[in-house]
Amino acid sequence: MPVFLNSADADFEDRFTALLSMKREDSPDVDDTVRAIIEDVRDRGDAAVIELTTRFDRMELTPDRLAFTPDEIEAECAKVPAEERTALELAAERIRAYHARQMPEDASWADAAGAELGWRWTPVSAAGLYVPGGLASYPSSMLMNAIPAQVAGVERLAMCAPTPGGACNPLVLLAAKLSGVSEVYRIGGAQAIAALAYGTETIAPVDKITGPGNAFVAAAKRRVFGKVGIDMIAGPSEILVIADRHNDPDWVAVDLLSQAEHDESAQSILITDDAGFGQAVAAAVEARLEVLERRAIASASWRDYGAVIVVRDLAEAAALSDRVAPEHLELCVEDPDALSSEIRHAGAIFLGKWTPEAIGDYVGGPNHVLPTARSARFSSGLSVMDFVKRTTLAKMSPAALRAIGPAAEVLAGSESLEAHGLSVRARLDRLNEG
Amino acid sequence: MPVFLNSADADFEDRFTALLSMKREDSPDVDDTVRAIIEDVRDRGDAAVIELTTRFDRMELTPDRLAFTPDEIEAECAKVPAEERTALELAAERIRAYHARQMPEDASWADAAGAELGWRWTPVSAAGLYVPGGLASYPSSMLMNAIPAQVAGVERLAMCAPTPGGACNPLVLLAAKLSGVSEVYRIGGAQAIAALAYGTETIAPVDKITGPGNAFVAAAKRRVFGKVGIDMIAGPSEILVIADRHNDPDWVAVDLLSQAEHDESAQSILITDDAGFGQAVAAAVEARLEVLERRAIASASWRDYGAVIVVRDLAEAAALSDRVAPEHLELCVEDPDALSSEIRHAGAIFLGKWTPEAIGDYVGGPNHVLPTARSARFSSGLSVMDFVKRTTLAKMSPAALRAIGPAAEVLAGSESLEAHGLSVRARLDRLNEG
Repeated sequence: MPVFLNSADADFEDRFTALLSMKREDSPDVDDTVRAIIEDVRDRGDAAVIELTTRFDRMELTPDRLAFTPDEIEAECAKVPAEERTALELAAERIRAYHARQMPEDASWADAAGAELGWRWTPVSAAGLYVPGGLASYPSSMLMNAIPAQVAGVERLAMCAPTPGGACNPLVLLAAKLSGVSEVYRIGGAQAIAALAYGTETIAPVDKITGPGNAFVAAAKRRVFGKVGIDMIAGPSEILVIADRHNDPDWVAVDLLSQAEHDESAQSILITDDAGFGQAVAAAVEARLEVLERRAIASASWRDYGAVIVVRDLAEAAALSDRVAPEHLELCVEDPDALSSEIRHAGAIFLGKWTPEAIGDYVGGPNHVLPTARSARFSSGLSVMDFVKRTTLAKMSPAALRAIGPAAEVLAGSESLEAHGLSVRARLDRLNEG
Repeated sequence: MPVFLNSADADFEDRFTALLSMKREDSPDVDDTVRAIIEDVRDRGDAAVIELTTRFDRMELTPDRLAFTPDEIEAECAKVPAEERTALELAAERIRAYHARQMPEDASWADAAGAELGWRWTPVSAAGLYVPGGLASYPSSMLMNAIPAQVAGVERLAMCAPTPGGACNPLVLLAAKLSGVSEVYRIGGAQAIAALAYGTETIAPVDKITGPGNAFVAAAKRRVFGKVGIDMIAGPSEILVIADRHNDPDWVAVDLLSQAEHDESAQSILITDDAGFGQAVAAAVEARLEVLERRAIASASWRDYGAVIVVRDLAEAAALSDRVAPEHLELCVEDPDALSSEIRHAGAIFLGKWTPEAIGDYVGGPNHVLPTARSARFSSGLSVMDFVKRTTLAKMSPAALRAIGPAAEVLAGSESLEAHGLSVRARLDRLNEG
């Protein structure tokens, strides 16, 4: 049974705080193993990657088999049924249209002192995209990682995906093709992250690595951070639904289960201002769980981490939601726009009862790589911004230097950085001579 | 003597690559110490912070002495001489004006399918700003860290700075006051980072921590990353100057030294298309080094990591600069704007000979917290963007769901996520009934 809380209860604050601080992730300490793998790949390149792939993925590779050939990619893509191809194309098109609006603009202006100021955005040159193998090999995640990079103008997109025993997912390869991926390597784990970060004889190094992965991949990404950029390390998925009684309990139930089915550590929370509706949703969840394909996973998630919270009113719901800072937030209420404006911390908001979260996983347009574990308090979902960087620009005229240079000289002096001051002074002296 | 390279030499590529891969940072492995400190602060809160401060900063604190009182801050600020106060105010005003232009805009639109899409930016609720003690206690860095947070609308700005033996820097406190810092704690090191991330009885936890620090601070920031957001871990400073022969060699020399004087591990590189000019700058550096206050540091940096590179033309200079991806790039050439447009990877560009890099350290307007160690390939300097986060928005009408829902259902099926598909199907069925 999930937790039932009522904000009117005396022990509510304690129990809500306990819910917030629940540790859902059991991350094994694989850091020593990962450190050794990364060192091995740095030292021995392809040879290390091939040996590690034999060990972990039961695959005998050779350097010229590390990458899929264009023909191999085409052959895999041809296996995708028409209905799935069309759906993937629609998803790619909608994700591309949404992300195209995220391209930040350059700026330049002159200020009162006569200084020309501004900034310019440029894309990362090469990005590495990781796709897990097995059950978590999601074509939608491929689109969500690659399309922002493609829109940003990244020239080289290299993807790594393990193919345990040789098995690969044709839909993932089609997604890669649809989103401009130029290189596909059949390697995974920490060895793939190391190869992307440091390069091997066959794989040129990249500048940024994104994409989900298991504990080894996550630990490897943490280790190569600094040498390359990385996206956030994602935790288990979460949904918070705020719903009033004017909803079909079954719709809300399947929405809650659509996160719960991801992972036994996923978390689904309902906040409602109607206790009876809360009970009805809980009953609908149980009914759906009887027949759901992934009921073992979803039941465990709902039992261990699920919660139904009854509140006095929707303003209280918004305040509690902000304390959770959920990855996904559904607002199934009469005026979702008004309620949305009260929310400060959420990865993505789905407004109104016709917007199930699953739309956002595939075809809505916004990215589904979103901050988990309360990190929406300080971070954002994946976007074009993750694949561009800003260069600031400053140009002084002699007049501008004369106006603001002396202050720089004073501050350099106060920080005991003499050469800083001298670099300004040398120029001011010339101006004063003239 | 610094390295002299000429791109026409047969061994140039090897030597340039060696320059690029030079390891300048000697980061001691303090991770075990830092892990213990963080655990101690999590377990024992204020008591641990106070004990650690006694040990590392030779200061006997009590919980009510952790923070400066408003009166104490005022008293310290009153010690700042008028000239320095005025300079700091000018800097704050210019930094604020520049960063105000960085506030990203919300967006919302409806697309052809009838989906309402968009995003909204909200500030982080609380930010922690770290300021090192001793020699590296720079008021300018306080402004550069705090003002972007203030501009972003962060409600609570908490600053930590160690005050070894009780000594504090009045200018840093004035800078804090000028940039809206509301809490100032006289603590430092890993214990300060732990207190900011996890909170103590006296210090409420924050959501984001920025600011430079020693190896302990850097290791602590790495460890708390995920629980809170952090900025980049900064390495030693760098400057690359591209200069033609129409420059005063002495100006370029002091510009190179203005980085070299920061740190023995700093790096200053000159790229020029005129070998004679390169020699003249090297000679000017030697002359300045004879009398520079920080000549011990600057000489070591210039000797160990400095370089003068002679190239055929400016296009080659731009290409080499991109391989360095310098933190600071000065373009002392006749048409700096044209050359700037050829640059893809640099933290900040200073255009023309009237723009010494030191202007950017203090009063230019752009941030001086910039990506080091070649990370300008994938990351940007500190900005307002570091203190806001994006919530994506999606709202389907029944018609929009009918248009794009089926594709989501197909993709959910291909990923074996049944409840995802059911959450869409339940709604589509209702529409088909109607």
